[in-house]
Amino acid sequence: MPDPRLSRRHVFGYAGAAGLGGAAGVVAGRATAGSDDAAAQRVGGRTYLAHGDHQSGILTPTPAVGELVAFDLLPSVDRTALGRLMRVWSGDVAALAAGRPVPGDAAPDLAQAGVSLSILIGLGPRVFDLPGLAAARPTGFQEIPPMAHDRLEDRWSGGDLLAWVSADDATSVAHAVRRLTTDAAPFARPRWTQRGSWRPVDADGNPVTGRNLFGQLDGSANPSGETLTATVFSTDGWLAGGTQLVVRRIEMNLATWDELTRDRQERVIGRALDTGAPLTGTAEHDDVDLTAAVDGVPVIAADAHARVAHPSHNSGRRMLRRGLNYTHEEWIDGSWTSSAGLIFTAFQASIADQFIPVQRMLDQGDALNEWTTAIGSAVFVIPPGFAEGAWLAQGLLGD
Amino acid sequence: MPDPRLSRRHVFGYAGAAGLGGAAGVVAGRATAGSDDAAAQRVGGRTYLAHGDHQSGILTPTPAVGELVAFDLLPSVDRTALGRLMRVWSGDVAALAAGRPVPGDAAPDLAQAGVSLSILIGLGPRVFDLPGLAAARPTGFQEIPPMAHDRLEDRWSGGDLLAWVSADDATSVAHAVRRLTTDAAPFARPRWTQRGSWRPVDADGNPVTGRNLFGQLDGSANPSGETLTATVFSTDGWLAGGTQLVVRRIEMNLATWDELTRDRQERVIGRALDTGAPLTGTAEHDDVDLTAAVDGVPVIAADAHARVAHPSHNSGRRMLRRGLNYTHEEWIDGSWTSSAGLIFTAFQASIADQFIPVQRMLDQGDALNEWTTAIGSAVFVIPPGFAEGAWLAQGLLGD
Ligand code: HEM
Ligand code: HEM
Repeated sequence: MPDPRLSRRHVFGYAGAAGLGGAAGVVAGRATAGSDDAAAQRVGGRTYLAHGDHQSGILTPTPAVGELVAFDLLPSVDRTALGRLMRVWSGDVAALAAGRPVPGDAAPDLAQAGVSLSILIGLGPRVFDLPGLAAARPTGFQEIPPMAHDRLEDRWSGGDLLAWVSADDATSVAHAVRRLTTDAAPFARPRWTQRGSWRPVDADGNPVTGRNLFGQLDGSANPSGETLTATVFSTDGWLAGGTQLVVRRIEMNLATWDELTRDRQERVIGRALDTGAPLTGTAEHDDVDLTAAVDGVPVIAADAHARVAHPSHNSGRRMLRRGLNYTHEEWIDGSWTSSAGLIFTAFQASIADQFIPVQRMLDQGDALNEWTTAIGSAVFVIPPGFAEGAWLAQGLLGD
Repeated sequence: MPDPRLSRRHVFGYAGAAGLGGAAGVVAGRATAGSDDAAAQRVGGRTYLAHGDHQSGILTPTPAVGELVAFDLLPSVDRTALGRLMRVWSGDVAALAAGRPVPGDAAPDLAQAGVSLSILIGLGPRVFDLPGLAAARPTGFQEIPPMAHDRLEDRWSGGDLLAWVSADDATSVAHAVRRLTTDAAPFARPRWTQRGSWRPVDADGNPVTGRNLFGQLDGSANPSGETLTATVFSTDGWLAGGTQLVVRRIEMNLATWDELTRDRQERVIGRALDTGAPLTGTAEHDDVDLTAAVDGVPVIAADAHARVAHPSHNSGRRMLRRGLNYTHEEWIDGSWTSSAGLIFTAFQASIADQFIPVQRMLDQGDALNEWTTAIGSAVFVIPPGFAEGAWLAQGLLGD
């Protein structure tokens, strides 16, 4: 076992992936101590350097806290002005990830390394309506068409820019969000904010898949290895090394879900609640066997979520999911109402070829629809990572 | 250095206090590995057993996440019914703290040990209006009288019961809150919910005081040792070993605060921002010297928060503060507004003798009032801890 004070100070490059259902990333960067397997697996107390082939916040493990802020561009912002904002944000992202204050930081003492902070920046559809950028709209990047089960609210949908800040604690996240928002003020103003949480470790601190608020292990079947790379990263022109992100705010009806028997809950998904194993297997990462049947009745039901979402049910289409649980209270007409759900997010090389067809399948045939409702929807292009001295989306906005 | 997997599994009794400005608590309970100093100091990844002289959540370090839920008793609830709820909650508190599901838990897989979970239960003023309980109202337990700077909102104020859940992550907190709320449903319904965060460790994972959203170290001058015990715990009849809690939701104007020079910010408090040291010293825990002056001008200004709140300015009155930072968005009239502040909480043996006189002093003479506004206020009696087989507030409600 390494000295925990040293492993806490481990500094990782862009791809210190762990906890992603076996996805093994390259542990790189300025490691200040030996980087053995145990350290590479550690979730929490880490420092992810911002520079690399991919932005961090995609393959880096989901830490305890996430906040997604969507922004609307001010009417005056053109391609050049957007480039200026991206240069400013690139400096902010690099500083904050390393635990340094940003230039002119009004609360510099809140900047801290070792808080697993990452900042993922995205560009919404309207960016490609700006003069000079139409031709650079990535193939397959589009809004999600309306689905029968949607009850979308404008206040949780859309956005011209995204900043998704992840960290071990919400105070560090709040500081980073405030710096990004302040520096964006001449260019863009916040449209919506979504806060969520995740529990990515077990009682002993070892990385695990994590559970949503229905109590299900969520993320088990995420792709790994070469499949992961092919699923997520674009090879398309300026976006090569980047990806496309779907954000869906999905309300979960905990009250009616809790009324089901455990057996029924497991059949709705097609997996066991305790281990997360497919009902055709015994361990979390066993293959989902869609052909298994007992007395002619399929073990994984025809409308089970794990069947309808499965690649072999969807011509091999996949995505990388990275959800966050939310609970939310609202003061409406003089009383509090509360709700809960999942900030569902999926990364893929092409929204049109991957997310949308799978979402259509689920909209038509997923048993889960009875307890889940999409109330927000947004899509973002995630530019590739950037090297020191370069900046985010330079391939799109640089000269 | 101990094996971190083992020290994560350390199980602590009621008083594993650390990070409280030097307060050293008794490390007790079923420690499954040697309990050396490093382990005792660890924040996060811990298991606090519920049973003991005091409830946990008072002396246990503030972990990353806190959620306070106030409840209103249903009109039908009398002393006997309240006793039934306290028995149910006592079982829930013991189970959830140990990482076990509660009886009939609809999401048992979300229960987990090693998440630093604690649940603090309190009783609001109206409990002592119930027939048979008036004589048991603790001395000094009363609402906070109106202050000139208050802008209190009913929706953040009051409450007949409190459940304050603390843990390393919001998913574990959400599960515990849901169980407590479900089990309370025959007796009480939620009145308000306040969520906050704290960052109690430095970049290396060592316990530190933690900072509020103005960037200040907040909690430095908290009492320790015997002074702590005398400050916090009641010796009054059935409440002996319990305490009284004030919860104030205090909005902080970050925008106008950020406009001040660093020098001015430091003079408003009377302490340095980086180290938290009094302006009359060099280290965080140096004494605040209220007599020091340069050219006849006091170093700690007459209206500095650290002077006006200081025990020697308040006839020796003290309290134990345990704040949480909040950020909050609200959808009002078709647009989002956002705010930030401190869920200020203070424990003391007597609200009338300790919190109220200090709050009056601050209301009259605190420079900080220009940037802070109380928008919520609530008070709770915190029953003493309970032994296995016993239950919360049994000394008040048992026969
Ligand atoms: C609140 C809504 C949802 C819940 C609670 C949920 C839950 C789950 C669970 C428990 C699993 C099985 C474990 C795992 O592999 O992660 C799963 C798998 C999956 N879900 Fe969802 N899901 C939701 C919405 C969606 C949506 C909107 C999509 C995409 C449109 C989606 C796509 C998938 C995919 C692709 C898999 C993996 C299937 C496989 O490869 O076996 N899910 N989900
Ligand atoms: C948002 C509002 C507030 C902020 C930002 C704030 C901030 C601070 C800071 C930075 C310190 C110095 C470091 C420390 O000892 O913790 C402090 C000390 C203190 N504050 Fe506050 N405070 C606030 C409200 C209050 C209120 C409402 C009370 C009580 C009515 C209070 C009572 C105290 C006390 C007793 C001390 C310690 C004084 C000493 O013993 O030296 N504070 N506060």
